[in-house]
Amino acid sequence: MSEVAVQAGLLDRALRRVSSLWRDMASVVGANESSPDLTARLRDALDGRGGEVSARNRAASLAEAYRTLNADGRTDFLRALAAFDSNPGAVARAMEAVAAASDAAERAVATARLRRALEPPRIRLLTAFAAIPDGVKFLVDMRADLMARIDGDKLLLALETDLKALLASWFDVSFLELRRIDWHSPANLLEKLVQYEAVHRIRHWRDLKNRLESDRRCYAFFHPRMPEEPLIFVEVALTKGMSPSVQRLLDLKAPVLDPASADTAVFYSINNCQRGLDGISFGNFLIKRVVGLLSDEFRNIKTFCTLSPIPGFRRWLESLLTGDEAPLTEEERKALHAIAALLPETVPDDAQEETILRALIARRGVLRVEEAQRALDPILTRLCARYLAKEENPSRPGRARDPVAHFHLSNGARIERLNWRADTSENGHRQSVGLMVNYLYDPDRIEKNHELYMGEGKRAVSNALRKLGKAA
Amino acid sequence: MSEVAVQAGLLDRALRRVSSLWRDMASVVGANESSPDLTARLRDALDGRGGEVSARNRAASLAEAYRTLNADGRTDFLRALAAFDSNPGAVARAMEAVAAASDAAERAVATARLRRALEPPRIRLLTAFAAIPDGVKFLVDMRADLMARIDGDKLLLALETDLKALLASWFDVSFLELRRIDWHSPANLLEKLVQYEAVHRIRHWRDLKNRLESDRRCYAFFHPRMPEEPLIFVEVALTKGMSPSVQRLLDLKAPVLDPASADTAVFYSINNCQRGLDGISFGNFLIKRVVGLLSDEFRNIKTFCTLSPIPGFRRWLESLLTGDEAPLTEEERKALHAIAALLPETVPDDAQEETILRALIARRGVLRVEEAQRALDPILTRLCARYLAKEENPSRPGRARDPVAHFHLSNGARIERLNWRADTSENGHRQSVGLMVNYLYDPDRIEKNHELYMGEGKRAVSNALRKLGKAA
Amino acid sequence: MSEVAVQAGLLDRALRRVSSLWRDMASVVGANESSPDLTARLRDALDGRGGEVSARNRAASLAEAYRTLNADGRTDFLRALAAFDSNPGAVARAMEAVAAASDAAERAVATARLRRALEPPRIRLLTAFAAIPDGVKFLVDMRADLMARIDGDKLLLALETDLKALLASWFDVSFLELRRIDWHSPANLLEKLVQYEAVHRIRHWRDLKNRLESDRRCYAFFHPRMPEEPLIFVEVALTKGMSPSVQRLLDLKAPVLDPASADTAVFYSINNCQRGLDGISFGNFLIKRVVGLLSDEFRNIKTFCTLSPIPGFRRWLESLLTGDEAPLTEEERKALHAIAALLPETVPDDAQEETILRALIARRGVLRVEEAQRALDPILTRLCARYLAKEENPSRPGRARDPVAHFHLSNGARIERLNWRADTSENGHRQSVGLMVNYLYDPDRIEKNHELYMGEGKRAVSNALRKLGKAA
Amino acid sequence: MSEVAVQAGLLDRALRRVSSLWRDMASVVGANESSPDLTARLRDALDGRGGEVSARNRAASLAEAYRTLNADGRTDFLRALAAFDSNPGAVARAMEAVAAASDAAERAVATARLRRALEPPRIRLLTAFAAIPDGVKFLVDMRADLMARIDGDKLLLALETDLKALLASWFDVSFLELRRIDWHSPANLLEKLVQYEAVHRIRHWRDLKNRLESDRRCYAFFHPRMPEEPLIFVEVALTKGMSPSVQRLLDLKAPVLDPASADTAVFYSINNCQRGLDGISFGNFLIKRVVGLLSDEFRNIKTFCTLSPIPGFRRWLESLLTGDEAPLTEEERKALHAIAALLPETVPDDAQEETILRALIARRGVLRVEEAQRALDPILTRLCARYLAKEENPSRPGRARDPVAHFHLSNGARIERLNWRADTSENGHRQSVGLMVNYLYDPDRIEKNHELYMGEGKRAVSNALRKLGKAA
Repeated sequence: MSEVAVQAGLLDRALRRVSSLWRDMASVVGANESSPDLTARLRDALDGRGGEVSARNRAASLAEAYRTLNADGRTDFLRALAAFDSNPGAVARAMEAVAAASDAAERAVATARLRRALEPPRIRLLTAFAAIPDGVKFLVDMRADLMARIDGDKLLLALETDLKALLASWFDVSFLELRRIDWHSPANLLEKLVQYEAVHRIRHWRDLKNRLESDRRCYAFFHPRMPEEPLIFVEVALTKGMSPSVQRLLDLKAPVLDPASADTAVFYSINNCQRGLDGISFGNFLIKRVVGLLSDEFRNIKTFCTLSPIPGFRRWLESLLTGDEAPLTEEERKALHAIAALLPETVPDDAQEETILRALIARRGVLRVEEAQRALDPILTRLCARYLAKEENPSRPGRARDPVAHFHLSNGARIERLNWRADTSENGHRQSVGLMVNYLYDPDRIEKNHELYMGEGKRAVSNALRKLGKAA
Repeated sequence: MSEVAVQAGLLDRALRRVSSLWRDMASVVGANESSPDLTARLRDALDGRGGEVSARNRAASLAEAYRTLNADGRTDFLRALAAFDSNPGAVARAMEAVAAASDAAERAVATARLRRALEPPRIRLLTAFAAIPDGVKFLVDMRADLMARIDGDKLLLALETDLKALLASWFDVSFLELRRIDWHSPANLLEKLVQYEAVHRIRHWRDLKNRLESDRRCYAFFHPRMPEEPLIFVEVALTKGMSPSVQRLLDLKAPVLDPASADTAVFYSINNCQRGLDGISFGNFLIKRVVGLLSDEFRNIKTFCTLSPIPGFRRWLESLLTGDEAPLTEEERKALHAIAALLPETVPDDAQEETILRALIARRGVLRVEEAQRALDPILTRLCARYLAKEENPSRPGRARDPVAHFHLSNGARIERLNWRADTSENGHRQSVGLMVNYLYDPDRIEKNHELYMGEGKRAVSNALRKLGKAA
Repeated sequence: MSEVAVQAGLLDRALRRVSSLWRDMASVVGANESSPDLTARLRDALDGRGGEVSARNRAASLAEAYRTLNADGRTDFLRALAAFDSNPGAVARAMEAVAAASDAAERAVATARLRRALEPPRIRLLTAFAAIPDGVKFLVDMRADLMARIDGDKLLLALETDLKALLASWFDVSFLELRRIDWHSPANLLEKLVQYEAVHRIRHWRDLKNRLESDRRCYAFFHPRMPEEPLIFVEVALTKGMSPSVQRLLDLKAPVLDPASADTAVFYSINNCQRGLDGISFGNFLIKRVVGLLSDEFRNIKTFCTLSPIPGFRRWLESLLTGDEAPLTEEERKALHAIAALLPETVPDDAQEETILRALIARRGVLRVEEAQRALDPILTRLCARYLAKEENPSRPGRARDPVAHFHLSNGARIERLNWRADTSENGHRQSVGLMVNYLYDPDRIEKNHELYMGEGKRAVSNALRKLGKAA
Repeated sequence: MSEVAVQAGLLDRALRRVSSLWRDMASVVGANESSPDLTARLRDALDGRGGEVSARNRAASLAEAYRTLNADGRTDFLRALAAFDSNPGAVARAMEAVAAASDAAERAVATARLRRALEPPRIRLLTAFAAIPDGVKFLVDMRADLMARIDGDKLLLALETDLKALLASWFDVSFLELRRIDWHSPANLLEKLVQYEAVHRIRHWRDLKNRLESDRRCYAFFHPRMPEEPLIFVEVALTKGMSPSVQRLLDLKAPVLDPASADTAVFYSINNCQRGLDGISFGNFLIKRVVGLLSDEFRNIKTFCTLSPIPGFRRWLESLLTGDEAPLTEEERKALHAIAALLPETVPDDAQEETILRALIARRGVLRVEEAQRALDPILTRLCARYLAKEENPSRPGRARDPVAHFHLSNGARIERLNWRADTSENGHRQSVGLMVNYLYDPDRIEKNHELYMGEGKRAVSNALRKLGKAA
């Protein structure tokens, strides 16, 4: 009999006892703003009456009840829970002892006591909630509920802070399991990939199967207590050369490459799966571990890179083109007029060049015209190189403006190559006029790149791209 | 490739880089009292240089180095580690903010910040240590190292407090797996039972196999990151009636009972396995889960009890017999003289009765004499009933004097039956003149028993035993 | 390192040695009718040169080569293989010894020798083929190849007979594993269900998922050497009452039933998956084992039945209606005219009643007209009851004419209930004008039903259906 | 619910029905020589009454009954079973058809029919027995029972021949799993190693653990239906250089070698575990697969050899020394007199040299005397080289006289080196006066060695050993 089944058994008995009470409560809490009963029951779950096992069972039955609550009921529940803060008097006394400590050793002990005094009782409740079947997933989802409700509510914020700390301890990367996902994986797990893939939507099971072929790899982190729930996953294509187009990668009709002949691993999609784990990052570790695994398995693979979206480029470009800077070169201006003359119904030839450019990129159809493609390639590529390599986050100077660029740069990657017409989907057009970028993970330079970026704000950029960014 | 293997790979590379440095360090730290290098390296492992992955690898290589240190080296390492306490200035500022908070919400936020300010950097290091292969076991053993070194050292005590809190969070019972151990279990796991069994030593593999027969059960808690290390285990015999003798339970020649015909489950040995988890209790949960499992599997089993040692009885008895109380009845006094007359070489007939009794129990051989057995049975059983049912812990009034009795009473068990000649081993004689006791776990009364004991200091005692305790 | 990997390794080395030769051979054998080389190589794989391990490796490399052959090449290969028959001289001598045996004991020994003499060398080759990775599946598929080629070729027939006997020995039901398949099963296995389901096609993954919900069960037999290939599988719905419609069972929008509240298990699809195992039956065992499993798991389920197609009904009905018998009652004739008057464009009112009936069932659309449904229900149900309960297989008197009926009757099931409009798909219409039947498996009557049917040709039929069949 | 459990369930029900009958039968069959009932019941299990599932259940209950029989009951059972031979009339008719066949194709079909006619019904019963839990092990053990009873009984011999053929088909090496056994293996499996190891007895669990250390390997073949029963296992030591002494290999105090630094794998013990599989050989395959596995895992291991006993040497030597040949050289004779002079109480100096030699080797103690060791080494080593390299099996000319030598030579190994004082145990002394031999498995020469030995009777012998054998 499994652990989970045992817990289920214990809880089941506990639940049967309280179920009639709870059915009432669930409706009451769902309907009314006040919940004195709920507070009483939370207190009940905290006290040791009947022993620790019984108290935990009471807490577990509270967690089960939470699942049945409607949105308002949950808000009430979370507020009632948040109210179980540390005892102010005890905290005050412990703070005094810290202040009064005369040497480091005394201070160390007083500090430890203060930490204990500060530990709010609600944390014990949260911990007890973990005991129900799927209890860890329950807490992850509860944090998602909380985040959606904070909105300035400091009590909820404090509870959320506690829960985040708890989850961060449990989900420390050293507790996670890296598992490969392939076409032999359980269907219910694969279904979750379909559900969680947000970068390049999985359209149907054939699309999914194509992403799990022998020239592909998919890896995810899992927590031992959530064995069927990926936390984050990465999709990798094994290719010859850095891939310049995501549509080509996802083409169902493309032949499958013998992976032994691949020289490059392209990380083309990374997805976080659990909203309730926001801010507890694994992406960094995932990429580096997968690089390790692949270089062990395939001695011929020398290049590890991404094929990444540039989500902020289009918006930045629009603001640049409506601003005061006059960012285009003479040559570019001429080329834009030429293309405008070719497509009179799209844009008047006599418009200002910035206006022409905005009009051209406004319509995805224009980019199917070969001449437009040719003309816009150097212009947009140059501006995008500048965006990635130079533009800074207005509120965090020294950091790249593009969030994906910032993620990879802070992981020690290098901005390697821009690819025109790399994502011709509507989404790709909306984000970056179809441009995508390869970030290069060179194991020998990751640390140095990271240091330069985080320490001095210097970005690792390939020579080609650096030149492009400087042009004009 | 497994998670652990991946980590091993990453670490291996990291370690190779630092190995030459470390070999030096290990010898230095092992030899000298000062360790500026070590502190520098700990700081190194904390800072984010080269990114979080790199920093963690540095921490991991420190953990690997710790393993190679001798006792003095470890003490130095632990002191250096303990010194990474929270920042006093930051703590002071955060305490002021808490003190200045004007309402509950503000206070909640200020408190959360104070908690963060109080979090000592050494906790991040400890967490990073968990990433090495067998990292969790490493930390458990490190705590055992720490406990052996505290001895008034407040700095080490503070570190130990942190580590205990960390382990308590990770080893919360909701993360543990309950697994059955039987003769199909891996030999390396069974070998650990042999090593950890301290209540009734396992003499050889036949003894072990006998304890895992079809009329026996053995269950243990495991942590997912220590899959080959039991945390605590319990040995159970399925019997007809409550077992009155541990030697009979462990008799290799006793026939194996068809477990379907058993009506009683006797928990005859519970052992904690990890010194580094002292104070993080699971015994309570283990017994109740196993009761649940067994009652599901065997509908005929109605009685769940222990066959427990009484480790404090003999010592208490000695002090009673040398004290002022004159604890024996007239009848008992006569019986003692009669037996003394029978064994003149052991004890002079004209001695005081208390002296006679002490002399008789001083020699295990005496108890092989049938007349002595018969005469001492009612005397010692009566005194032991009094010891268990009435005697209090001098430093914790209301609690049972016997530590094992206190454990089971606080779990809600009842003191059910005393068994004379139940443990005839030397150890059994030394602890309790061979007496053992059955504690009864009646699922319907556990909570109430617990409440009465913990709340009002009232012990649950069977009628028979209560009468015995009152006699005289 | 797994068994399979080891074999792969051994073979790999063997194959590399012969690969250049074989590439030649494959093209030669694929192109020419004669294959002296092939025969030489088969002989090579049989002789013991270099030891048994080497000989087997040679055989294995032949099997690998077979995989690369085109259709003609395979025919040549199979003929060359079939030619390795037993030695006529040795057989003749052994037959003489049997004939000359003077008593039972002598005869027993002579017979055993004759059996050995009769064992054709090709069987040793087939056995050796099993050693390649997926070798058992290879032989199963080779038998499918053979069956498609026999067509009067007695040599191939003899080889096929041997191979069938070999497979029958290996695939004896006592070696098979019964496994449940659900939404947690590997996607590559589920994909095979989609591929092999022939009774009620699985349209897409949502359809598949719906068939694996908590109120469904799917079980399959597997062979240990073909762990990812189902041999036969059955789909079961847990319902309240016997299900009267397959469309309702397969409805994606139908609510999921709490399986604990089901009282009936409906076996609604059974599919053999491996053509190469034709004639080696498991269906019988599968149904009875699943009945056993379900009655253990769900104490409330009392009724085990099928919802089965009636594949021969429509064809039989057509021949009946064009024959001389005048099978309709007066009442039915009237009803047919009434419905013809209602649908003048479909059928002239003045036609003969048999013609009207044929015209009405010729168009699936007619059955959407409520009046037609109502009118045809009693007529077709009565005729179908007769078909199932009375009509005999012309070439095997005493056996039911309908093949599915024969299968279930010989398993001991009872013809229980006819369901009008039970399969409204085009396929259902084509086979049986939408009728389906429930066969009832009553564990207490299975043996008796089987005896009566197999021994005396008496079919178990429910009272209701028996009456229906007798009406008119 | 597992397959086995399902079968158990089905059988259980069947058994309960027949149990009262069977209890009677078991006692009757166990007591009486005649068993008309038993024959009737076997017939019962063969006929199809109630369907195949029922018939198989009847067979299975017979198998269960067999388990409860005493030795005489089993003999009766086996005789009754053996009597279910093929039908003589049907065989006669089928033989006639074969004789009458006019061409190869007709003959092929007639032959196939004859094979079917020859198939005795008892084989169907044996197959059905396999369905009980542990049914395959049951049949293996039944063959062991049979072999112990044949003793000229032709009926039992015929049954045994059938059963052997059945087992040979099921236990074909392509169905076996090669698994490594180590200290993580289940204790009940390791216990079987202790039980089955016959070459060098395992004395206790420490001895066992020592044989599973990191510089040791143990591999066994398993059958999927007997997952806890090894069929054959081999123990390997990873060493530097060919090991010259088994006591040194088994020394508990010897340091554990880092396996990465080993250059040699020494197969020092191979044991068949199942008497009922005698004559169905795997040893050949096991050694070669393990060579493959080890050479994949350890690139540094270049030498694969055995350290083997020489079980026939001592007996052959005794007969040589009492025969007419005068096998000793002048020098050897002198050395024997010298040593006799040294040990007057063991052997008179004036005895004949052959007598002296016999007297010296008769006492194991003599070999502890250093001078005796030195003197006997060249004499016995030379004679043993002759024994291994030249002496032939009197009843099978061309084959080595020593059975172990024959086994390894027929596998393609080379007789490499003799080791004096290699097995100083009593058993080693009794078999071969303590001598052991290394057979070398050189992957590049295995096939050629095999061919020369099997084809021409030429043995592969190292130069050193060949010279030794020629000396004198």
